[in-house]
Amino acid sequence: MSRKLVLPLALATMAFTGAHSVAQAADPAETIEYRQAVFQVTKNNFGPIAAMLKGEIEYDQAIVEKNAAVVQMMSTLVGDVFPEGTDALAGETNALMEIWDEPDAFSDKVAKFEETSQALVEAAESGDKRQLAAAVKDVGASCKACHDDFRRDDD
Amino acid sequence: MSRKLVLPLALATMAFTGAHSVAQAADPAETIEYRQAVFQVTKNNFGPIAAMLKGEIEYDQAIVEKNAAVVQMMSTLVGDVFPEGTDALAGETNALMEIWDEPDAFSDKVAKFEETSQALVEAAESGDKRQLAAAVKDVGASCKACHDDFRRDDD
Repeated sequence: MSRKLVLPLALATMAFTGAHSVAQAADPAETIEYRQAVFQVTKNNFGPIAAMLKGEIEYDQAIVEKNAAVVQMMSTLVGDVFPEGTDALAGETNALMEIWDEPDAFSDKVAKFEETSQALVEAAESGDKRQLAAAVKDVGASCKACHDDFRRDDD
Repeated sequence: MSRKLVLPLALATMAFTGAHSVAQAADPAETIEYRQAVFQVTKNNFGPIAAMLKGEIEYDQAIVEKNAAVVQMMSTLVGDVFPEGTDALAGETNALMEIWDEPDAFSDKVAKFEETSQALVEAAESGDKRQLAAAVKDVGASCKACHDDFRRDDD
């Protein structure tokens, strides 16, 4: 069975967890723009924490806490930014069709990102760099796990 | 005196408030991408609240609270996303040079956005639609006030 035949069924049965803040988005193109912005903000806030732990930039407790809180908030949006109509056929993005073909598997990865990001916030607030390093590793692993299965490599 | 002569002085003396989560950004282009993502996420979360109040989409208390929290968090990032090197000369953006020429005036507008966004969170949590409508109006006015002075119209 081709993907084009499978897709409508997958869309009809898909369900994502979390509050659906983007359910009101005007159109798929705007939602995709929003989606990419969510990941951009995530990257720009997660990156500096990792860089601080590597000693690439100076450690700053206030920035670590703030950035961790931003990452955590972004993680709660990810479940909202792949709604019906924004699938891999809707535009030139790195989102693989597996997101919509395997919604439960995808939701599990999103949930893992939310979970590890919450732990990141707690680690950031603890001020314990060992705990923070472990939390950063877990968030990074959850990013990678999802990208491995649901994101095109060439970006 | 031309803008090009004024600029280095303005950069040397500029100061923005708030934690500088983006001070570590790799390069101006990346920071500009981050900046645009921050405003994109803001827009996609503020828009639905306004649309709900207008009756364009169904009112949802949970979404209003979540979206307001996202807007508030984004407001705390705005002061970080116009650092030196990302000025109007650095790329094709809608940011006007006045941001760097008049840093105090710009910081005042950013502070107003933070303040009105905090009030938005409180209004959202209150569940009082009249209070929410007033808060939405104030946030909208703070967006407009800053765009009027510091953003190119044609977008």
